[in-house]
Amino acid sequence: MTGAKRKKKNVLWSKMHIPHCEDFKQWCRRRLPILQWAPHYNLKENLLPDTVSGIMLAVQQVTQGLAFAILSSVHPVFGLYGSLFPVIIYAIFGMGRHVATGTFALTSLISANAVERLLPSSSKNLTTQSNTSMLGLSDFEMQRIGIAAAISFLGGMIQVAIFVLQLGSATFLLTEPVISAMTTGAATHVVTSQVKYLLGMKMPYISGPLGFFYMYAYVFENIKSVQLEALFLSLLSIVVLVLVKELNEKFKRKIKVVLPVDLILIIAASFACYCTNMENTYGLEVVGHIPKGIPPPKAPSMNVLSAIITEAFGVALVGYAASLALAQGSAKKFNYLIDDNQEFLAHGLSNVISSFFFCIPSAAAMGRTTSLYSTGAKTQVACLISCIFVLTVIYAIGPFLYWLPMCVLASIIVVGLKGMLIQFWDLKKYWNVDKINWGIWVSTYVFTICFAANVGLLYGVLCTIAIMIGRFPRTKTLSMKNMKEMEFKVKTEVDVESLQLVKIISINNPLIFLNTKKFHTDLMNIIQKENASNQPTDDISKYEQNTLLSSLSNDNCNEFSQPCPNGKHSLILDCTGLNFFDYSGISMLVEVYMDCKNKSMDVSLAHCTASLIKAMKYCGNLDSEKPIFFDSVSAAISNIHSNKNLSKLNDQSEV
Amino acid sequence: MTGAKRKKKNVLWSKMHIPHCEDFKQWCRRRLPILQWAPHYNLKENLLPDTVSGIMLAVQQVTQGLAFAILSSVHPVFGLYGSLFPVIIYAIFGMGRHVATGTFALTSLISANAVERLLPSSSKNLTTQSNTSMLGLSDFEMQRIGIAAAISFLGGMIQVAIFVLQLGSATFLLTEPVISAMTTGAATHVVTSQVKYLLGMKMPYISGPLGFFYMYAYVFENIKSVQLEALFLSLLSIVVLVLVKELNEKFKRKIKVVLPVDLILIIAASFACYCTNMENTYGLEVVGHIPKGIPPPKAPSMNVLSAIITEAFGVALVGYAASLALAQGSAKKFNYLIDDNQEFLAHGLSNVISSFFFCIPSAAAMGRTTSLYSTGAKTQVACLISCIFVLTVIYAIGPFLYWLPMCVLASIIVVGLKGMLIQFWDLKKYWNVDKINWGIWVSTYVFTICFAANVGLLYGVLCTIAIMIGRFPRTKTLSMKNMKEMEFKVKTEVDVESLQLVKIISINNPLIFLNTKKFHTDLMNIIQKENASNQPTDDISKYEQNTLLSSLSNDNCNEFSQPCPNGKHSLILDCTGLNFFDYSGISMLVEVYMDCKNKSMDVSLAHCTASLIKAMKYCGNLDSEKPIFFDSVSAAISNIHSNKNLSKLNDQSEV
Repeated sequence: MTGAKRKKKNVLWSKMHIPHCEDFKQWCRRRLPILQWAPHYNLKENLLPDTVSGIMLAVQQVTQGLAFAILSSVHPVFGLYGSLFPVIIYAIFGMGRHVATGTFALTSLISANAVERLLPSSSKNLTTQSNTSMLGLSDFEMQRIGIAAAISFLGGMIQVAIFVLQLGSATFLLTEPVISAMTTGAATHVVTSQVKYLLGMKMPYISGPLGFFYMYAYVFENIKSVQLEALFLSLLSIVVLVLVKELNEKFKRKIKVVLPVDLILIIAASFACYCTNMENTYGLEVVGHIPKGIPPPKAPSMNVLSAIITEAFGVALVGYAASLALAQGSAKKFNYLIDDNQEFLAHGLSNVISSFFFCIPSAAAMGRTTSLYSTGAKTQVACLISCIFVLTVIYAIGPFLYWLPMCVLASIIVVGLKGMLIQFWDLKKYWNVDKINWGIWVSTYVFTICFAANVGLLYGVLCTIAIMIGRFPRTKTLSMKNMKEMEFKVKTEVDVESLQLVKIISINNPLIFLNTKKFHTDLMNIIQKENASNQPTDDISKYEQNTLLSSLSNDNCNEFSQPCPNGKHSLILDCTGLNFFDYSGISMLVEVYMDCKNKSMDVSLAHCTASLIKAMKYCGNLDSEKPIFFDSVSAAISNIHSNKNLSKLNDQSEV
Repeated sequence: MTGAKRKKKNVLWSKMHIPHCEDFKQWCRRRLPILQWAPHYNLKENLLPDTVSGIMLAVQQVTQGLAFAILSSVHPVFGLYGSLFPVIIYAIFGMGRHVATGTFALTSLISANAVERLLPSSSKNLTTQSNTSMLGLSDFEMQRIGIAAAISFLGGMIQVAIFVLQLGSATFLLTEPVISAMTTGAATHVVTSQVKYLLGMKMPYISGPLGFFYMYAYVFENIKSVQLEALFLSLLSIVVLVLVKELNEKFKRKIKVVLPVDLILIIAASFACYCTNMENTYGLEVVGHIPKGIPPPKAPSMNVLSAIITEAFGVALVGYAASLALAQGSAKKFNYLIDDNQEFLAHGLSNVISSFFFCIPSAAAMGRTTSLYSTGAKTQVACLISCIFVLTVIYAIGPFLYWLPMCVLASIIVVGLKGMLIQFWDLKKYWNVDKINWGIWVSTYVFTICFAANVGLLYGVLCTIAIMIGRFPRTKTLSMKNMKEMEFKVKTEVDVESLQLVKIISINNPLIFLNTKKFHTDLMNIIQKENASNQPTDDISKYEQNTLLSSLSNDNCNEFSQPCPNGKHSLILDCTGLNFFDYSGISMLVEVYMDCKNKSMDVSLAHCTASLIKAMKYCGNLDSEKPIFFDSVSAAISNIHSNKNLSKLNDQSEV
């Protein structure tokens, strides 16, 4: 290689390298949103509110972590890990500033399904009870978390796959009524799952279709086994929580500091339980042994992956749907943008990486996000600060949670679901806005209640699509152009005679297989009405034509009663709104054109896109002599006018 | 009861009775279309062409009946029955005038699947060979037709059920590309199934996924077992058929009589085979024993219904889809109307009733319908006349068909499929009109080839819906109103200053969950463009504003460079095209309204429907002080103008 060549190559290399490096940096910034916001973090302004929010969030993360881990049928300590790792990863990859990732009731419910199916509680005694495993937990508990982590892993992989395939934009299929109904239904499920703790009852794990109803049936059948102490404690907790939260909400502006009632309640209840030894005296169920520290990472049980694929899909889509709604809410409130695909990456990585740290499937929860708003969090730093406190709990405070009564924990969970349950009030809104959406809400809710959140979500999406397809062919496709707007044009350029015979119709819908038939019917109706009597039937245009007539008196007054024999009817189709068509639509348009030509009616098309013109030319063998495509409606009118004059001249010369 | 009361009741009864009777008559006329056309049948004009067509049709019915019965894996005589009963029933209930119902290749292929699954040919020797059963056929043959008739029965019941549920209008989902691809694919299957007869090979029944390819693989593996006599006879038949049909087509106008080449070929081939005793000399496969007469009706095997449900659905939908396309073609050509639901009833009853007469599933075939056109049939009478000749064949000529070589029959079938196979040329049209429809065609064809006609149809419909959903969110939702059209209005009524600040945007699409996001983006783009520089960027409106400016010089020339500080921007949304919306659409519209209000931008909506206004009022708490809904764009402009003058007056008085 000569020196010149080498030099040239080096120059080329550097030339190619620099933009590559820039591209990479930009790509990093896009894919790691933390690089965008962290360097510009305003310490002075934001650190204090973020810290306060972080502490409040940590309290919620710990309580919900414990509760949702139990809901997932795994040991509560894994909920604490689930409140730590996903939060850190989402803060790095996620774009939502108020999205408090962590344990999530809905995904916990779904994964519990798989855990209980593959390792039912009844099999506990069959496995060897050895406490030699990590954290002093039994093998059975470790196997169960292995399955839950595997769901988290596979769900996360599905989310990452959706990100890779750039299918994030397909989330428009998850409409508001469907998500609202699905989350409300799932919240109802969660409340139901907590009933046994609230009442202090022992109840087997019930799932499957209609499991919801079987659970209540079981409660009513065994109503005598209700533990009155637990019931009393639950009611007390719920009343205190609701009252204090109401007061907090009311005096938020005056006091500015929110009373951490969850934290106080946990401390008070644990302390009371410890002092009075409630666990042994009254037989009250408590959280129990919480091991200290975090074990070394371990891969989830990969051998069960094929058995949990339904649950993984459920976790991936339900978790994402709920989280995206929250991220979009935050983006809307604080005026920034969210990339649907990036969110899939963030949640996917949160699930995949966390699954190696014994985490249950994670997602953003509505309760925590609302609390971030109310405590004034500004950025993701609040979530990161909460992690520090969760770590403290894991390493120091955890063991003291031993005495926390389960009924108090359940009360905190149920009250935390308030936000989801009050979505029932949306029903009134849907009823008034669109009865069909109301129907979708109700039926999706019923499906979610009777089956599960993922079934409800699937039903809702399919139902929305089916109803859209059913409604589409019934919608009006055309509208008569308001003559008033054309009048001025017409007055100056064209004589009244031609105006009478021109119908301007605008196409207002995409023309696809769903509505071609309706388009044809609508158009034929208009034309037939026109032909039957030249007098237009709808009032507005009649009125306008009359005024026109009176202002410009001329010789063809009798045209209203009988059609002008040599007057050729003309039709102008304004295709401004026709920006989406398929083969069926085009062939119908060509058919209409041919029909009209056979009826010796001129058809002109205005405002056509290039692709429409190309498609129409290919589809039908159009009249190549006359121009039929025009840039504007006025150009089409002028053309008709000049044609008319030409034919008149011809007539005269023939005479 | 007093006399007066009784009288009153009688009067009431007669009053109520008369319209009931009228209603019933009308209902009969609607549901039995034969009552509509038969009384007006023009004997003089139509009987001759109908009779000629009927004879020609009978020839096709007999050949196709024999061939498609063999394709269905049942004895050929049942194909003759299938060319008789469904034709009569369709003539009574159907509306298509050129719809030649009878045996159909696609439905035969589907039902063969079930017959071979439940009673494989290999089990023939296991059953007791007793010729004591009806028609001198073996029990095995009777069991097989029992299954085929059961498919016909269940398929017909499904069609009747669809009629009862009035779901016939859902056939808009069966778009032209999908049906074209499915029928072409099925025709390819039929050709493949005839290859063994054309080559005179013995081949086992091959089905299942990719069976198409296995069949050709088998042929190439056993290429040595090709019977040269059969191959020669097939080639000869195909060449003769194609040539004569081409000539017929060419000289149709001159000669007016079509040479019944199929009939001649059958007679000639049978005679030649009989004379030379080809069956025994060369081992050529012939049709064989055709029993005389029609056996008494018998219910199909009801005990297999649950096992054939997939095939029944396939038969019901594929048969209907193909038939409807033909009926619609005839209706379009001869300018009459078809009721999709009534067609479901007609085909359903054809299948159900015929199933009691040992008929295989029926539908209208393209080849026969085309021949009805070309021979000049006028009404359903042609089909009824063909039935007389089919009856003659069944009672008299049938046994003579014994010597008809299978390879000649297969040649007739293959040449008859020409019409379906040349649909391949549609591909070029689809490519030019809409690439996506081209893609749907190709993939549906591949699915049909690899699996079966019903799988292909299902895939095609789902694919069409999915692609529509994928394309919808990408289409333009808005268009700037052409200023030219508004100009005249504006010149006379409103001063230029306000015009500069008014944007008129028309909504051209339904506003549903699929495109709300796009609507928001589009609208924000327009507004931001407006705000960034008051100077509009697109050339047309710039040009127009400039001409306006020069014609009316005034004091706010500098407005183009910097926005007028007290000039309030206004947005008029023309909702003429918005005739279909759901909750997502309305909430987005309200959101846009709120956004604009926050940016101190007036939003007016023109041409709103009552339901839209109601929904918007309920969805957002709209500004009740200012009117925002107007009957027309000009009313909205006038309102903005008067508001402006009012605010100017206020400003002046404040100063």
